[in-house]
Amino acid sequence: MTRAVVLLSGGLDSATALAIARGRGDECYTLAFDYGQRHRAELAAARRVSVALGAAAHREMALPIGDFGGSALTDRSIAVPETPSTGIPVTYVPARNTVFLSLALAWAEVIDAGRIVIGVNAVDYSGYPDCRPEFIAAFQALARLATKRGVEGGALVIDAPLVTFSKADIVRRGTELGVDYSLTVSCYQADGDGRACGRCDSCRLRRQGFAAAGVPDPTRYGGRT
Amino acid sequence: MTRAVVLLSGGLDSATALAIARGRGDECYTLAFDYGQRHRAELAAARRVSVALGAAAHREMALPIGDFGGSALTDRSIAVPETPSTGIPVTYVPARNTVFLSLALAWAEVIDAGRIVIGVNAVDYSGYPDCRPEFIAAFQALARLATKRGVEGGALVIDAPLVTFSKADIVRRGTELGVDYSLTVSCYQADGDGRACGRCDSCRLRRQGFAAAGVPDPTRYGGRT
Repeated sequence: MTRAVVLLSGGLDSATALAIARGRGDECYTLAFDYGQRHRAELAAARRVSVALGAAAHREMALPIGDFGGSALTDRSIAVPETPSTGIPVTYVPARNTVFLSLALAWAEVIDAGRIVIGVNAVDYSGYPDCRPEFIAAFQALARLATKRGVEGGALVIDAPLVTFSKADIVRRGTELGVDYSLTVSCYQADGDGRACGRCDSCRLRRQGFAAAGVPDPTRYGGRT
Repeated sequence: MTRAVVLLSGGLDSATALAIARGRGDECYTLAFDYGQRHRAELAAARRVSVALGAAAHREMALPIGDFGGSALTDRSIAVPETPSTGIPVTYVPARNTVFLSLALAWAEVIDAGRIVIGVNAVDYSGYPDCRPEFIAAFQALARLATKRGVEGGALVIDAPLVTFSKADIVRRGTELGVDYSLTVSCYQADGDGRACGRCDSCRLRRQGFAAAGVPDPTRYGGRT
């Protein structure tokens, strides 16, 4: 059995990545970050998803990267856009996946885990540079140089099982694996109860994913009316 | 003028790296971490060094990686060794430089800095995997893939100016640049007043560095008698 650290945001993608890791028998340690995001509903969702999918342990870490500013997701002076943009959007959080993976790597070293699982995908995504396969490959190269396990020749894999999936593929795969997507929160501006706005980029991609997969959308909308 | 984020630990190496960056005219934003280390004297030292060397701003970030355990520097159930060891020692903090660089990268993105300065060196060092030139090169490759600046073709350099220096070289260079090493704290188990134990690996390397450079050692010893 492989021991894995799984990054869990509370959203649809990372829940599916966890289900895939659990489905192949990984012993999963889930990690969520309180990084100054606009709402805490996704942290509650991450805890629910971790339990529902049988993770061995869940950890929530405070990480004040929001203090740096620079993103609509952590800086309330920047509005979350409700129409698609071109290029890298303002919801991009600087270096977020680099930071998240580096902390997952720290935990992986301590518990001697050989795999880190991250639910990024580069198809129906928001144009973030740190969601691309070349970024994941570069992080894996770094991880092997950076750690005791890597230096000593142990296996160390950064696994992004959804990286080539469309949003519909993700919904289909998770549904096959029994993921209860009503537990997840994807909206950038969900209310305290986890209800989605239905209008932000993340809501738009999620809604289209369910529609394209032909799976009923269990999302609770009405968060910001 | 290049804008740079400079990682500052409060110790001798990072103070020298900051002095080198300031000496070539970089506008420096210094970053220190409260990561659960055994003593806070090095955080006070980092603040003093930042001011003394004319940084533009200093930021101290809470980072609970000590909660993961696994290192004598953050886990009080593991003793700090007072004799040299072979291999990677217990003072190694899992993935520390990966985590520190990733957070420096996040700040660099927000303030549009083109350089990150880190005071690692791979000569008179403690055998940590994340102090080697190949690690620094891998992080630079990652940083360029991970960020808006990198994707858009902007300059982004991870600068480790001490990486090939001996401890004596570092002391000599810093002394030329006017670094007041009495402000710095290197000891793994300094007391609350910043006085060094004189026996840990870090004290041993530092003391030998001053001796080999022929520079009087301004370290205040007597921290754990």
